[in-house]
Amino acid sequence: MGVTREVTVAAYLAERLRQHGVAHLFGVPGDFNLGLIDGLLAGGQQRWIGSPNELNAGYAADAYARRRGLAAVVTTYGVGELSCLNAIAGSYAEQVPVVQITGAPATDAGGQLLHHTLADGDLGHFARAYREVTAATEVLAHGSAASQIDHALATALATSRPVYLSIPVDVADSLVDGHRLATTVWSEPIDAASMAAFANAARELLRAKDGQVTVVAGHEVERRKAARELRALVEAGPLPFVTLVSSKGCLDEDHPCFAGVYCGDLGVKSARQAVDQAAVLITVGTLMTDVVAGMFTAREDRTHTIDVRGTTAYVAGERFEGVPMRAALAALTGLAGDYATLPAAGLPASAILGRRAEDEHGPVTDALTQISLWESLEEWLPPSSTVLAEIGTSFWGAVSVTFPADTALVAQPVWSSIGYTLPATLGAGLAEPQRRPVLVIGDGAAQMTVQELGTMAANGLAPVVLVVNNAGYTIERVLRSPEASYHDVTAWNWSGLVRSLAPQAHTFRVTSRRELRAALTAASAAPDRMVFIEAVLPANDTPPMLQRLAAATQA
Amino acid sequence: MGVTREVTVAAYLAERLRQHGVAHLFGVPGDFNLGLIDGLLAGGQQRWIGSPNELNAGYAADAYARRRGLAAVVTTYGVGELSCLNAIAGSYAEQVPVVQITGAPATDAGGQLLHHTLADGDLGHFARAYREVTAATEVLAHGSAASQIDHALATALATSRPVYLSIPVDVADSLVDGHRLATTVWSEPIDAASMAAFANAARELLRAKDGQVTVVAGHEVERRKAARELRALVEAGPLPFVTLVSSKGCLDEDHPCFAGVYCGDLGVKSARQAVDQAAVLITVGTLMTDVVAGMFTAREDRTHTIDVRGTTAYVAGERFEGVPMRAALAALTGLAGDYATLPAAGLPASAILGRRAEDEHGPVTDALTQISLWESLEEWLPPSSTVLAEIGTSFWGAVSVTFPADTALVAQPVWSSIGYTLPATLGAGLAEPQRRPVLVIGDGAAQMTVQELGTMAANGLAPVVLVVNNAGYTIERVLRSPEASYHDVTAWNWSGLVRSLAPQAHTFRVTSRRELRAALTAASAAPDRMVFIEAVLPANDTPPMLQRLAAATQA
Repeated sequence: MGVTREVTVAAYLAERLRQHGVAHLFGVPGDFNLGLIDGLLAGGQQRWIGSPNELNAGYAADAYARRRGLAAVVTTYGVGELSCLNAIAGSYAEQVPVVQITGAPATDAGGQLLHHTLADGDLGHFARAYREVTAATEVLAHGSAASQIDHALATALATSRPVYLSIPVDVADSLVDGHRLATTVWSEPIDAASMAAFANAARELLRAKDGQVTVVAGHEVERRKAARELRALVEAGPLPFVTLVSSKGCLDEDHPCFAGVYCGDLGVKSARQAVDQAAVLITVGTLMTDVVAGMFTAREDRTHTIDVRGTTAYVAGERFEGVPMRAALAALTGLAGDYATLPAAGLPASAILGRRAEDEHGPVTDALTQISLWESLEEWLPPSSTVLAEIGTSFWGAVSVTFPADTALVAQPVWSSIGYTLPATLGAGLAEPQRRPVLVIGDGAAQMTVQELGTMAANGLAPVVLVVNNAGYTIERVLRSPEASYHDVTAWNWSGLVRSLAPQAHTFRVTSRRELRAALTAASAAPDRMVFIEAVLPANDTPPMLQRLAAATQA
Repeated sequence: MGVTREVTVAAYLAERLRQHGVAHLFGVPGDFNLGLIDGLLAGGQQRWIGSPNELNAGYAADAYARRRGLAAVVTTYGVGELSCLNAIAGSYAEQVPVVQITGAPATDAGGQLLHHTLADGDLGHFARAYREVTAATEVLAHGSAASQIDHALATALATSRPVYLSIPVDVADSLVDGHRLATTVWSEPIDAASMAAFANAARELLRAKDGQVTVVAGHEVERRKAARELRALVEAGPLPFVTLVSSKGCLDEDHPCFAGVYCGDLGVKSARQAVDQAAVLITVGTLMTDVVAGMFTAREDRTHTIDVRGTTAYVAGERFEGVPMRAALAALTGLAGDYATLPAAGLPASAILGRRAEDEHGPVTDALTQISLWESLEEWLPPSSTVLAEIGTSFWGAVSVTFPADTALVAQPVWSSIGYTLPATLGAGLAEPQRRPVLVIGDGAAQMTVQELGTMAANGLAPVVLVVNNAGYTIERVLRSPEASYHDVTAWNWSGLVRSLAPQAHTFRVTSRRELRAALTAASAAPDRMVFIEAVLPANDTPPMLQRLAAATQA
């Protein structure tokens, strides 16, 4: 769309979203957003991706934003937006910039007893609920709508968090000045003096501590699109690096500097050694929550740490503003000469040793178990896939295997809302059509959000979907009362279900390692079709890393 | 459970719920509620009904509470409770007393970066979100847990609204004084002097206005279990009565005093006349929102109205506290002599005339249309059914037909969250095993919450489920841009889907009136089996009443 004098608020928003890479709108129509959707779609900047419900649409948008930098989900007032709240809270917890757009009653409707309201005349309830889970909460008003949109988008980009736009029906098609679209919403705030001070402080710390330097890559490396800069730093050293369960795959795992996924005492030895033996840690966009920090067994050592975040950085606890991640990494790369002078610089032996814990390999039989399932997936997984691993046995299996080059992982180790990854597969598939999504999810989680199998099929996506049928919530069986019947879920005929929602899909039901391998081979032979594999596993079988997590939780 | 000295908080809550008729707990387990669920179920007061997701569980609980007086839904912290928020907001808007019970992190966990939180150390976000949509919001604490539970339950019963209990893991199994269970949580507050003043004022108004008296029965008649008292009043007159779209079925529609469903200018003539010609209206538990009031065309006339609510009443605008609905109705029944002395007392001619609008009957052909669908259902519907009619074409069809005796209607004309009625069928079926649920729902709505077909089957329920397959959101096509593709939903193979989730169900796909009738006959012949009927209708066919509503909305 060209820059014209006056555009509708909806058209303004659509163009702003396009400027930041948003080519699809997820959502569900409703009577308070029909005009808004018409206005958003009028210019052709985005394609509408309707989902059967709003939670699923929100999950899809979250994954889209992870892979693409921004996403939008459109709901209607009350009934629609509240169903999406859990997804947006997840985007907040996991630092994903999603724009939640809700069509709302008219500006002058306050006091009226409308449907989709609590019938108390107060139209502010749901925006206040959203204020709890978003970085900016805007109810658009005449006269300020364009600046409110820009403020919200700038906040989303600056914080890598979700924002909320409630758009009354009369505001959606009101006119704003389109010239404003030529300005930039947000750019990374770089402070040159602060950058120089940061680099000096980092150099001093590196010289003072005089020992091995290890890089810990966190989830924000993906969110800030800083993988290239991080790789340059690692290779300039060269420095060993670890990822976290929240960032696995953000740098290639076949890289010679990779020392494994670090999860405190729960993870592999090579990663533990790389972290524990370091004189200086360079942490990049990390967030050490209970699970990510191996139930708080991860090393915390501010005085030995250079901590790079979204737009700030810390050296031994000293804060530097205006130091965005990519610039900070470039500055640290410029210090490569200093690493080289350190006595213990270079790669530790552990980094090039085996990266899997000793108990991860099982006896090679034909039985289908958590271990043989993940061994089979590891052998098969093609490069340039996007792996979506549902929190539960699937996630803890996925973090234990080694990925081939250019493998992305989409998961929710912080928010941990089960059911997330199935709609996320829709979002990831649309965000990056060149990458095949590979979803691994338990039956309990898949039941939560199963509808999107139909949406993926209707949109021509061809993911590989592997449902681990272990008759319920196995991750919870591990935690308490393993025999309690509330862990069980209703038995579904998965193949029949998939044929009903996605008639073109190839479906397999596998009960042995051999059958699983055959199904995966068939999946490779059908790159343009959805391939659905139901893998039947014992109800109480769990990956070793989840067993360690459960033991640590109970301790 | 007997009254013992000390019981756990969970056991205390289970017993309180039992005292108010709650025999089932809806919900989904999660790591912060596993101990809570164990504690709730330990005494055997309730049976666990696990749902595939929390929104569905909340909807099921809502319907259970409507039919039974109270319900409870159990979720886990953050990810679980937020998914349920839309259902609880609906319970608030529609005045349904549901207890939302969430298992939460330990009391001393504030400040920690936990999974299922926003990782900012603030554990209050979600309780604050719930404060927007509940009548009481309690985070249970050591020392006050029992009184907090009692306060919340009393509030739910007094207001007929949902309440929220967040129970930290360490509080769930802490001990409280069980003797307290012998006290009553809440009883209706009757003020004798206020009652007498109310009766006097009502008598004066009836004498002063000197003309026909019409009763308008609202949704709170069901919520307050006041149908028997209302019937006594109607018959003591006798007085013509109308129901609203929010209360249809709260009194039998074959009653000679029934004048039809009143919806302002949109409803049937007989009901309009009964209301318009009245010198005095007795309104009982009404809430005149936009839709219920026929887009604000309903008569509003405070000076001619005796308005009976949950625990208060008004006469010509004068407020009387401590006048609960059933007592108020009994007092008004005691004034029957006064009605009899009025010149135009008794039934108007309109009340015994036909109760359907002139355009509701179509030509009798074999075509399956909205009109012939509802004519067929009207002919077939057995007495003592519970009809669940999804907001959309299904609801507006249902309100236009006449119900046989003892028919209950469960629907959401105020909150209007599509997808509600499918899980509501689970809740209604468990609440009243002696009544067969009959669900009528569009395909777009059914896709939202389809999982509960499996839950119903697993729990041995035998509803009749009729899905109107019209390829999308027809109610929205009526409102705007009827050809827009965002109104369409993905085509599912409904029969295959149902066989996958509920293998014992009988399934039918009908495309003509004759086939529909045959399927309904088969449903009657299989009272112990789920019967699923997919009725294929044109995408833009709508019931006449919905057409009138759409025209009024656009005007």
